[in-house]
Amino acid sequence: MSDLLDVLRHTVGSHHVLTGEGLGAWEQDWRQRRPQGKALAVVRPANTAEVAAVVRACAATGTPIVPQGGNTSLSLGSTPDASGREIVLSLARLHAIRAIDPHNLSMTLEAGCILHHAQEAAKQAGLLFPLSLASEGSCTVGGNLGTNAGGTQVVRYGNARELCLGLEVVTPQGEVWDGLRGLRKDNTGYDLRHLFIGSEGTLGIITAATMKLFPLPSAQLTAWAAVPTIEQAVALLGLAHQHLGAGLTGLELMGRSALELVARHLPHLRVPLLAEMASPWFVLLENTDSESEDHARDRFEALMEAALAAGCVHDAVVAQNQTQAQMFWQVRESISTAQAQEGLNIKHDIAIPITRIPAFVAHTDALLSQAIAGVRIINFGHLGDGNLHYNVQAPAGDDPAIFLREQEARINQIVYEAVAQFGGSFSAEHGVGALKVEQLEQYQSPVALGLMRAIKQALDPQNLMNPGRMLRL
Amino acid sequence: MSDLLDVLRHTVGSHHVLTGEGLGAWEQDWRQRRPQGKALAVVRPANTAEVAAVVRACAATGTPIVPQGGNTSLSLGSTPDASGREIVLSLARLHAIRAIDPHNLSMTLEAGCILHHAQEAAKQAGLLFPLSLASEGSCTVGGNLGTNAGGTQVVRYGNARELCLGLEVVTPQGEVWDGLRGLRKDNTGYDLRHLFIGSEGTLGIITAATMKLFPLPSAQLTAWAAVPTIEQAVALLGLAHQHLGAGLTGLELMGRSALELVARHLPHLRVPLLAEMASPWFVLLENTDSESEDHARDRFEALMEAALAAGCVHDAVVAQNQTQAQMFWQVRESISTAQAQEGLNIKHDIAIPITRIPAFVAHTDALLSQAIAGVRIINFGHLGDGNLHYNVQAPAGDDPAIFLREQEARINQIVYEAVAQFGGSFSAEHGVGALKVEQLEQYQSPVALGLMRAIKQALDPQNLMNPGRMLRL
Repeated sequence: MSDLLDVLRHTVGSHHVLTGEGLGAWEQDWRQRRPQGKALAVVRPANTAEVAAVVRACAATGTPIVPQGGNTSLSLGSTPDASGREIVLSLARLHAIRAIDPHNLSMTLEAGCILHHAQEAAKQAGLLFPLSLASEGSCTVGGNLGTNAGGTQVVRYGNARELCLGLEVVTPQGEVWDGLRGLRKDNTGYDLRHLFIGSEGTLGIITAATMKLFPLPSAQLTAWAAVPTIEQAVALLGLAHQHLGAGLTGLELMGRSALELVARHLPHLRVPLLAEMASPWFVLLENTDSESEDHARDRFEALMEAALAAGCVHDAVVAQNQTQAQMFWQVRESISTAQAQEGLNIKHDIAIPITRIPAFVAHTDALLSQAIAGVRIINFGHLGDGNLHYNVQAPAGDDPAIFLREQEARINQIVYEAVAQFGGSFSAEHGVGALKVEQLEQYQSPVALGLMRAIKQALDPQNLMNPGRMLRL
Repeated sequence: MSDLLDVLRHTVGSHHVLTGEGLGAWEQDWRQRRPQGKALAVVRPANTAEVAAVVRACAATGTPIVPQGGNTSLSLGSTPDASGREIVLSLARLHAIRAIDPHNLSMTLEAGCILHHAQEAAKQAGLLFPLSLASEGSCTVGGNLGTNAGGTQVVRYGNARELCLGLEVVTPQGEVWDGLRGLRKDNTGYDLRHLFIGSEGTLGIITAATMKLFPLPSAQLTAWAAVPTIEQAVALLGLAHQHLGAGLTGLELMGRSALELVARHLPHLRVPLLAEMASPWFVLLENTDSESEDHARDRFEALMEAALAAGCVHDAVVAQNQTQAQMFWQVRESISTAQAQEGLNIKHDIAIPITRIPAFVAHTDALLSQAIAGVRIINFGHLGDGNLHYNVQAPAGDDPAIFLREQEARINQIVYEAVAQFGGSFSAEHGVGALKVEQLEQYQSPVALGLMRAIKQALDPQNLMNPGRMLRL
């Protein structure tokens, strides 16, 4: 192994091969709920050629590789296990924006580029890079692609996958696939791009990508509505599609109990309509307009009139300015923080066909309440994409740690069985990582698992790329 | 082999196993320029289970399978070779629309459903299925997905790939993968869907799909503009993105020589602005509006004012009604017919990064004119997607058949080398089929080819699924 470390030091420079103690920033998951892993080394190559050389050195010595971007995985996808055998390959030094092409509406950038920097670079060129999620200040575009990240504008722009035109990838053999052509149409063989996107580093290492850009919108408006039932929230989504067309860039659903946690733990945030209305559900809508703010406001008001007339909403407010709009979003994005302050909870990142969401929620709420008296369900998410963060909190007053220890497996079983029954997914946007490997085996069909394993074995026969994450052989 | 035919007859009914003469409808490419192939049999299963049984019977006897939808391939992708050893597996009887889900904005339908029927079914449910291409009256959705078809609305809605939420596929082993979940977010393992889409039947047989639907637009307007240079056509595209946002659903470019052929051979069609303006380029724009026809017209007029002021257009007309709009499209879609009447020609379906299109055209036009005095270049296509149908016609008066025989290889070489040099694709939307297998080997990188072959061998180790098409082992 000292031979390998020598080769790695020679390849990337000895300053960029980190060993020993004090590597928590790479060895520990950012939530810090799980025990710290132990890497053989953290290796920080500077460019694609160095990444390829590191991979070849690891392949030659049978050393497993854990690729890592901003270390913001929610599923233990990018930290090493405790064996001390795995290297962490950090993409952080590959952070260049290689090119922005305004006429082609595309941007080529390296995997370690932080998402927020990518957004800013596009904006400076007068364009929009629409991928947006809570960790955008530290997550990287390579990680976003490796996990096919979602976020808050998927209803309009799609997931990270839909925003990608091309990739550069280092294969498990340490070869470089240059697939960075910024084309909207290219039917020349299998779509390798989509195979690597969402593969969580198990088939190769994404080192750069060409991503779609969009014209900067002229206006963006945000509204907040109190909704009588979850069925009416789904009906409101339909009306929003009709009235706003592609202008609808966000539709977030929040249960009353989720917002009550925000009001309790983050009292400096004013939760709109919560005190005034007894509604069990609230919705945040975002409308993006290529014309003008007046036009956006007209469209929004027409939508709200129709929604009030149809009984989809009890009441609604449109943010009067950007500050108020940001405040609406801040309330939405503070639910996780408020939940953490309330105590440990059991998180589920699920997707359900939108039509079936009301029945799913009624069914699963009832099963959980039956199983555990007083259990609290904190349900919120991206309704426009059918993606719910259906989280379960201990009954008020119970010790959350004991609750988790005793009930987590049982609650997961209830929730994931219901998800399967309603044709949904147990991992909508957070990926599988090391955390949900068993769920993948349980809920993917044997035919799908067989195909996935055949692909993994064909491309990574030594099983060195993020082994044991996502797909167990 | 008679054993196999017996099994097939038992599986799908003897009426649906066709052998002998008179099978030209399945054995011959629709252009009828290539010699007719010879199938061992044409097999017409009625449902997914029958498809799976047919595949198992073929796997057991080592019989190659050519899947076929509407037999409208432009690249010899779905007709049998001359060996008499291959069966044609026709999906035509799997044509049901299984479900339309308005709240989920999705439709599940079988592979043999004709594209136009899918469009009509969506419309009857008050929704839009936006995939649209010239052969929509006979091509099938399964074929569209197998080849990742493009068409005229890609600039807004993407290719067939981008419209697909889920697939049902029969694997080369005759197993059924049910991946029909209609979810917008699902990160549970490798994206098998995108691997099968565009694989041209070489990895399995798509039997059904869940596709995205959209709200029906309130208005659709079409405009026709005369443009001074191809650089200004690209600038007009940028203005259209800015002014129309997601309302821009089509931007087609047509060279003057392409339209002159239409005017000469199809004199009943009036080509707008051709007689009045000396412009070398014309553009057809389509604007789709979720609000109203008045609003669409206002937006279009604002765009045209800006384009005139910027010098992007010489003159423009907006269609005054649906009939006139259809006439504009008819002119655009008649270019191929007019070309055929002028005589055989050498077709190229290429994509180039949009910014580089003007330089590519200048470069390649010059090379061809230098190589063959008087050669005529008929250039038109989907500029919004960077997709050109860059076709080459014999000098006026030359015999097209002799021209093709003597010059086709040389012209292809010049065009495809230039495409590679400008970072483009030799097959934008028509696929590879049997026609462009050599181009794939020449212009895909060795690393990409190695990955593709590893995948093909892993999933279809007997090489029975459309063998020799797309990817040669």
